[in-house]
Amino acid sequence: MAADVTTQALIDRHRPTLDQALATIRTRAYWSPHPEHPKAYGEHGSLDAAAGEAAFEALRSTRLDLGQPGTDDWVGGEVSPYGIELDVSYPHPDLDVLLPAMRAGQPAWRDAGPEVRAAVCLEILKRISDRTMEFAHAVMHTSGQAFMMAFQAGGPHAQDRGLEAVAYAYAEQARLPGSARWSKPQGRRDPLELTKHFTPVPRGIALVIGCNTFPTWNGYPGLFASLATGNAVLVKPHPRAVLPLALTVRTAREVLTEADFDPNLVALAAERPGEGIAKTLATRPEIRIIDYTGSTEFGDWLETHARQAQVFTEKAGVNPVVVESTDDYRGMLANLAFSLSLYSGQMCTTPQNLLIPRDGIRTDQGPKTYDEVVADLARGVDSLLGDDTRASALLGALVNPGVRARLEAAAGLGEVALPSRAVTHPDFPDAVVRTPVIVKLDGAEPDDEAAYLSECFGPVSFAVAVDSAAAAVALLRRGIREKGAMTVGAYTTDAEVERAVEEVCLEEAAQLSLNLTGGVYVNQTAAFSDFHGSGGNPAANAALTDAAFVANRFRVIEVRRDDRGNGKNE
Amino acid sequence: MAADVTTQALIDRHRPTLDQALATIRTRAYWSPHPEHPKAYGEHGSLDAAAGEAAFEALRSTRLDLGQPGTDDWVGGEVSPYGIELDVSYPHPDLDVLLPAMRAGQPAWRDAGPEVRAAVCLEILKRISDRTMEFAHAVMHTSGQAFMMAFQAGGPHAQDRGLEAVAYAYAEQARLPGSARWSKPQGRRDPLELTKHFTPVPRGIALVIGCNTFPTWNGYPGLFASLATGNAVLVKPHPRAVLPLALTVRTAREVLTEADFDPNLVALAAERPGEGIAKTLATRPEIRIIDYTGSTEFGDWLETHARQAQVFTEKAGVNPVVVESTDDYRGMLANLAFSLSLYSGQMCTTPQNLLIPRDGIRTDQGPKTYDEVVADLARGVDSLLGDDTRASALLGALVNPGVRARLEAAAGLGEVALPSRAVTHPDFPDAVVRTPVIVKLDGAEPDDEAAYLSECFGPVSFAVAVDSAAAAVALLRRGIREKGAMTVGAYTTDAEVERAVEEVCLEEAAQLSLNLTGGVYVNQTAAFSDFHGSGGNPAANAALTDAAFVANRFRVIEVRRDDRGNGKNE
Repeated sequence: MAADVTTQALIDRHRPTLDQALATIRTRAYWSPHPEHPKAYGEHGSLDAAAGEAAFEALRSTRLDLGQPGTDDWVGGEVSPYGIELDVSYPHPDLDVLLPAMRAGQPAWRDAGPEVRAAVCLEILKRISDRTMEFAHAVMHTSGQAFMMAFQAGGPHAQDRGLEAVAYAYAEQARLPGSARWSKPQGRRDPLELTKHFTPVPRGIALVIGCNTFPTWNGYPGLFASLATGNAVLVKPHPRAVLPLALTVRTAREVLTEADFDPNLVALAAERPGEGIAKTLATRPEIRIIDYTGSTEFGDWLETHARQAQVFTEKAGVNPVVVESTDDYRGMLANLAFSLSLYSGQMCTTPQNLLIPRDGIRTDQGPKTYDEVVADLARGVDSLLGDDTRASALLGALVNPGVRARLEAAAGLGEVALPSRAVTHPDFPDAVVRTPVIVKLDGAEPDDEAAYLSECFGPVSFAVAVDSAAAAVALLRRGIREKGAMTVGAYTTDAEVERAVEEVCLEEAAQLSLNLTGGVYVNQTAAFSDFHGSGGNPAANAALTDAAFVANRFRVIEVRRDDRGNGKNE
Repeated sequence: MAADVTTQALIDRHRPTLDQALATIRTRAYWSPHPEHPKAYGEHGSLDAAAGEAAFEALRSTRLDLGQPGTDDWVGGEVSPYGIELDVSYPHPDLDVLLPAMRAGQPAWRDAGPEVRAAVCLEILKRISDRTMEFAHAVMHTSGQAFMMAFQAGGPHAQDRGLEAVAYAYAEQARLPGSARWSKPQGRRDPLELTKHFTPVPRGIALVIGCNTFPTWNGYPGLFASLATGNAVLVKPHPRAVLPLALTVRTAREVLTEADFDPNLVALAAERPGEGIAKTLATRPEIRIIDYTGSTEFGDWLETHARQAQVFTEKAGVNPVVVESTDDYRGMLANLAFSLSLYSGQMCTTPQNLLIPRDGIRTDQGPKTYDEVVADLARGVDSLLGDDTRASALLGALVNPGVRARLEAAAGLGEVALPSRAVTHPDFPDAVVRTPVIVKLDGAEPDDEAAYLSECFGPVSFAVAVDSAAAAVALLRRGIREKGAMTVGAYTTDAEVERAVEEVCLEEAAQLSLNLTGGVYVNQTAAFSDFHGSGGNPAANAALTDAAFVANRFRVIEVRRDDRGNGKNE
């Protein structure tokens, strides 16, 4: 029984990691098995930086043949935001062949049970981790992230989120016994007795619709949550960010094959330019789960039309920061400047609206007027990004022309407190690298409302002048309720204001970061400890990761047997 | 701090019960704290049979004033299926007053935390349990159930389901720590440190839309799951079954008041005749959760239109029983006869289609032809229901004229193997009491398909002749997939057939009972052990009760604080 040996070996290898993950999602302390320092790679079978880059280069101008059934074409054509052509081609699916093939392996995958599935998932993650340096380049040259961010967010942090999802999936499935003996007393008569078996069963085929900016980080939670709960998973990457997820699918298929499962439990669906395959896939009856990260418009479309599926969406919000007072003015400015600059604001968690009382704020450096705060923040961003090489390493490249167009249009929305500047990338002269713009708006001015109550994805922030702390809190509530927020930040030394902001976040269901002045930023969340999104405001209908993210990806089927002929002696 | 004493006293009183419930949903062994024998009532403050009946009689021709704000009218007019007029009136809501009032108490209820909420819910259930004998009459005279069933299913079994929901809700919320200290190593620099607080927050106001046949049993899971997760709950009973839920709301409001919470956290919305208030309520923006039991048509409407809410539906299915072979022919017939007769087949779990090979079946009494099996089953039902008094105690009354019309029409669908008979109830001569009809249909005959693939709610069963065991299994799969099933039964001594039936149930997500020949019936499920519905086939989108039933009724909000100024020493 070679297969049993294999799955037992996987359990032996990964059970300690799974147990630590299970413990950590309960304590929510810091933990990660995936190192985030580049020097940690190159040992224990992992690729070092040079080998990772070589592996990435070797992928260019190749056909990534995943051995999938029903491949009717080869498609591709990603161009890096840094200007290079990847020229990789991927399988395009004949769905009427691929989808049935994906279902074929489900009974065996279901019968393997939660622990084996978790162990196989952890082996997939381990092999991805070993190739982190290769993934870093793949993420960089599809998302436009700077290398260090692509390495960290696209590597260990994404793997952490995948592992977290596996832990939640395992925990939910393992809460039930495999079987039970049920014996109900009947007074002086014999008890009623039944034998009951409980099996977590998959919903069907799960669809992951990837995004351009964080293909692995946003893709892994849904992918691994669905796979660990017994579903086959079809990955539909963003057409400009196929490679990181194609490598992921390849790795998953390798591991599944070696563990004697059907590799078609995980497959890729790449699309032709303009094909819009996501809509076709999302409404196929075989698709019973969808994970999506992207625009509110398409997220809403999915929620409305993909009625046969459980739909998990991360859409867009308008993230606010209340700036009311601080006892660390420099720390606040530095922290905010970094948050606005990181990956050119192309994170769903980047703050957009800074809500600042027009009469100014109290600080450890004395009172500061609204104009002073905005000017000091502009200076902070400027000094952070003054050097082109350093700026490039923080900003990365604009991911697509739409972001650039929004950035350029933003300057016309109000008084520009900090103009955007073109940065020349030291290694990639064709990359479009831009510093953030900060625009002053008036929260009491109806004409400005359309701007600050719309998401402006990219390096655009609004310094919104408000009448008072109370007005800031009111606008905070309104923005979250109407437009949603992935993150909320607040700076205040006033216990009353803090309480009011916290109450708004509890009532409107938004995740709050208070008084971040050091090396933790509002746009970053850590797996096993922080929730990404809340699932309770319009920005997202799910949170990464909680029980609700996994519990409805499977159903439990009970088979109860009367194997004694109850009541025959009555 | 009188309130603290009260809530602590409730925790002290109910924590052992909660702990036992938490343990039992993991072992799924038999357990119930609610006695199902009438003699157990009358002690420890509970009403005995006479006191319960007197309490019910005292309710007749009264106004049940719940002290709710925004009551603009008094409505009612329930007539018992047994013929008596209840003449109780209930508050009709002005929603623009009642809904805001229901929200007012939510912050305090949220801040109380999961354990206090669970304890308050258990106190509500305890007081309901004490009045079980009163509820029995209220359920009997709204649902038409016979007294003993109304007492058991409407009393202890419903209370079990409510407690089960509280246990799941508590378990999901308690998986998170209240707070965490997060410390991320930074090599030789000081670690990054954050303090994090995690709060389960409600989604908003939950709506329970009650049904006519099992107002408490089907109403309690959603009511208590939503309340225990911090939501206010508005109960909209079926207009013919208001009293049991109105008494429930009254009890909940009493307990909330005594525990110093806002009684408006639980409220009743009775409606005028023909008002159709459910549609209005279901699409109000304040309503964020809906629990519904009833027709597929309205369940589908809710799933389509109540997009602002989490919608949990139990709709209708077409429940099949595969009759392939048995080693206890008499036991099988007796078990099936009882299942078809109980509450006149007016259970969402009653078998409808008996799939029987036309060449007959193997039994311990030799081979039996299809005709013999059907005739023997008809005789079994006949002898079970031969005496009017005994028949009345099992059948109860038809709940509404629609059931009677369907029953009468069914005789025209095929050859009648067992005609329905009118039974005279010994105590209530106006009650419409009918024995079940069994109609022969041919599974290979396209003309019969419309009958056996539609739900025919009430005392109607079809003996469907099929070509083979394989044809039975194929029809089983098709029926579940297309029409859904709350229950599946099967009788077989053939390991191959058993495996095939089980595989269909696992793949199509239906709960399976095998070879029930004694005192356990396919239409009954026990809280803490059995799942009611699967949530994975068209009969219902949720199961009673699993983690998915509770996990998305609340969201978790994290507040993280940088209270040390991370990184200032860098």
